[in-house]
Amino acid sequence: MKNVVIIGGDGFCGWPTALHLSAQGHRVAIVDNLSRRKIDRELGASSLTPIAHISERVQAWKEVTGNRIDFFQIDVARDYGALEDLLAMLKPDTVVHFGEQRAAPYSMRNVSAKRYTVDNNIRGTHNLMAAIAGLELDTHVVHLGTMGVYGYAGEGFTIPEGYLPVKVANDEGQWSEREILYPTNPGSVYHMTKSMDQLLFQFYARNDEIRITDLHQGIVWGTQTDETRLHPALINRFDYDGDYGTVLNRFLMQAAVGHPLTVHGTGGQTRAFIHIRDTVRCVALAVAHPPQKGAPVKIMNQVTEQHRVRDLAHLVADLTGAQIAMVDNPRKEAAENDLVVCNDSFLKLGLNPTTLREGLMAETVEIAQKYLHRFDVDAVPCVSTWTGQQKAGIVTEEALHRQIAAE
Amino acid sequence: MKNVVIIGGDGFCGWPTALHLSAQGHRVAIVDNLSRRKIDRELGASSLTPIAHISERVQAWKEVTGNRIDFFQIDVARDYGALEDLLAMLKPDTVVHFGEQRAAPYSMRNVSAKRYTVDNNIRGTHNLMAAIAGLELDTHVVHLGTMGVYGYAGEGFTIPEGYLPVKVANDEGQWSEREILYPTNPGSVYHMTKSMDQLLFQFYARNDEIRITDLHQGIVWGTQTDETRLHPALINRFDYDGDYGTVLNRFLMQAAVGHPLTVHGTGGQTRAFIHIRDTVRCVALAVAHPPQKGAPVKIMNQVTEQHRVRDLAHLVADLTGAQIAMVDNPRKEAAENDLVVCNDSFLKLGLNPTTLREGLMAETVEIAQKYLHRFDVDAVPCVSTWTGQQKAGIVTEEALHRQIAAE
Ligand SMILES: NC(=O)c1ccc[n+]([C@@H]2O[C@H](COP(=O)([O-])OP(=O)(O)OC[C@H]3O[C@@H](n4cnc5c(N)ncnc54)[C@H](O)[C@@H]3O)[C@@H](O)[C@H]2O)c1
Ligand SMILES: NC(=O)c1ccc[n+]([C@@H]2O[C@H](COP(=O)([O-])OP(=O)(O)OC[C@H]3O[C@@H](n4cnc5c(N)ncnc54)[C@H](O)[C@@H]3O)[C@@H](O)[C@H]2O)c1
Repeated sequence: MKNVVIIGGDGFCGWPTALHLSAQGHRVAIVDNLSRRKIDRELGASSLTPIAHISERVQAWKEVTGNRIDFFQIDVARDYGALEDLLAMLKPDTVVHFGEQRAAPYSMRNVSAKRYTVDNNIRGTHNLMAAIAGLELDTHVVHLGTMGVYGYAGEGFTIPEGYLPVKVANDEGQWSEREILYPTNPGSVYHMTKSMDQLLFQFYARNDEIRITDLHQGIVWGTQTDETRLHPALINRFDYDGDYGTVLNRFLMQAAVGHPLTVHGTGGQTRAFIHIRDTVRCVALAVAHPPQKGAPVKIMNQVTEQHRVRDLAHLVADLTGAQIAMVDNPRKEAAENDLVVCNDSFLKLGLNPTTLREGLMAETVEIAQKYLHRFDVDAVPCVSTWTGQQKAGIVTEEALHRQIAAE
Repeated sequence: MKNVVIIGGDGFCGWPTALHLSAQGHRVAIVDNLSRRKIDRELGASSLTPIAHISERVQAWKEVTGNRIDFFQIDVARDYGALEDLLAMLKPDTVVHFGEQRAAPYSMRNVSAKRYTVDNNIRGTHNLMAAIAGLELDTHVVHLGTMGVYGYAGEGFTIPEGYLPVKVANDEGQWSEREILYPTNPGSVYHMTKSMDQLLFQFYARNDEIRITDLHQGIVWGTQTDETRLHPALINRFDYDGDYGTVLNRFLMQAAVGHPLTVHGTGGQTRAFIHIRDTVRCVALAVAHPPQKGAPVKIMNQVTEQHRVRDLAHLVADLTGAQIAMVDNPRKEAAENDLVVCNDSFLKLGLNPTTLREGLMAETVEIAQKYLHRFDVDAVPCVSTWTGQQKAGIVTEEALHRQIAAE
């Protein structure tokens, strides 16, 4: 039984993780500033599934299981004092840190969204590090990173778990091998913050011997877990808007409303995926296996499958009978890329992945069709602009569709 | 003639650079929030040389040369709106960005100094990037980085200028060469922010094609430049306190007051140096040679000499007759390290370095001895702690001396 604080525990990944860890017998406290709900209002978007207030959520969990989950409304980026007080009081064995702005398109929306993403994510993560170091706690931090820190260019080799073996020449021209942090190549301000987080972790692991696990996660799909199914107020988010909706959810909604599935360019972009059920299991495994004190940051790839966007579209089309439409891709990225990702660490720890083929039908029937009456077509367009050339606020046909491939 | 904005232009490097660029005929505006003067008051420290108010400084420059330097008091980390307005108004050809908290010991002083350093440096740099991208300016940004991003471990090879050629194996086990950003190994929160800055620059150079030059500077020594000598109100800073004073200045002050020069451990730490006169020339060369639009970040090492700390001590001892005392080094770093740094770029651009041997006498006579009456012995101790184990606020014998080797 561990004492676990879950920052961002009201979010899409954090909430089912909180329930899963609570179900496993851990003592769980959620910290969240509810900013994600605020951004929903700002964007005029909302989850397709109806999300209960956080107090109803924890109340329902108490009713169903008898387990208490405490909730603390704290902004970890802006209210350092409250964060420090809480950590000093709870002395958690583990902090799972989900509490960042996580949409790439949102992070590219305009200057203020860029600034918000950097300020929120970097300050929040650094506040956590500085607090744990300052309080001299032996707390294990499990952080959610992203596959996007690696970049998506086809490199001809399997992406390792965080560290890359390279050869370096000395002044005599002799090459010798060493291991380095994988050279990062983020494609958005959001991904950039996760790359910067890596440097924070490297420093605090070395200087203060904080135990840190960084989980480079793929695109999470699926909605329900064993625990979120237990009560209607426990249901998880399903985002399909232009900023937070991931490619698969947008395909599912397009299929549900009878719209062709829009695929960019050749649809050759390959992305890595994981089901939310496996996310919560992976985090539980990470919590159970902290690195040694003084060890380098433990980096694991939290992904189970890789798919090309066009193959995803075909999967959804086969299942639903939807058409597929190809559109231009104005996003700055390679049209086609290979992506092979090593995920040995979690497989060795016993993860038994849910495949897309198995889980997609449930998403189609239990979520997309069941909650179709809550669908808001206006939430789909996306006005984020990757560069200044595309003026913010102007919704072009491309802008409308290009985020389909964005994590 | 270029239109140049100098962020941090009231500081030790920024002020003489502003004068030098103004003397060269550029139109110069200084942006500074005067935070460095505030930190002086917080630490109860001050420059050995008497520093005039910024308004007197620019006034004196006007009198002596007829050149106008505009001053804008803006906090680039906290007042984004003012920064954006200024850039929109001036549309500078070049922004030279010195405006960061730059003392490693200060950045490790306590939790709030760590947080301040990260917030100030990352937000400031990111605000600048986001503003230039958002305004779609073709402004060349010249940023001051640090040798400390490379780390100081003896690697057996010459430290290249920002990028390292490495070999990487594909899945078939065939090794091929590519160039990567030098894997960073910062030794303090301050150095960590400069490593994080590198990721900001990499992203904005790629995504928005901002022209960026990052100058990884060594420890700057020396006080006066040709321009700061022109009037007493133009004189530059000489810091010797435990946080901002660099090793050489502390040796000079120890010598001036007849105290033995305190050297840590074996004094085997090697550091890279550059005279302030060469700093301003290097920056002028960088301003004159922007990278192409769309090019990767141009990284140059702004250093001219490497010395071991004990050799520095001997240099000063030889010149002044001071004794040398060896003390323990509780800082987390290698006792002995080799450091050979490539500085070909600036040599090719015509830099003709001032050597320590030549310049040290002037420092001793014109500065340390001349302003000895302003020396405050209480400003020397340093209470920064590298890890939680050493309690902040307790001035140990080691804490008193260990910062001597810190940049
Ligand atoms: N969803 C994915 O596909 C995916 C993929 C890779 C990585 N991740 C990472 O996993 C984590 C969780 O993602 P998610 O999909 O659950 O996102 P989400 O937006 O649904 O959840 C994030 C939660 O953190 C909270 N939060 C944000 N800033 C905070 C702050 N300063 N203080 C306190 N709380 C704050 C939000 O209110 C929200 O509840 C993120 O770090 C994300 O980058 C997610
Ligand atoms: N001095 C050295 O030995 C040395 C070595 C390597 C790199 N550098 C780098 O060179 C740059 C200048 O160093 P310095 O020695 O002149 O330091 P300094 O502290 O004397 O000058 C920095 C100036 O920036 C200003 N500033 C800080 N934050 C600001 C903000 N948010 N908004 C506006 N102004 C702000 C300060 O008030 C100060 O005037 C720094 O980035 C430093 O990291 C210095």
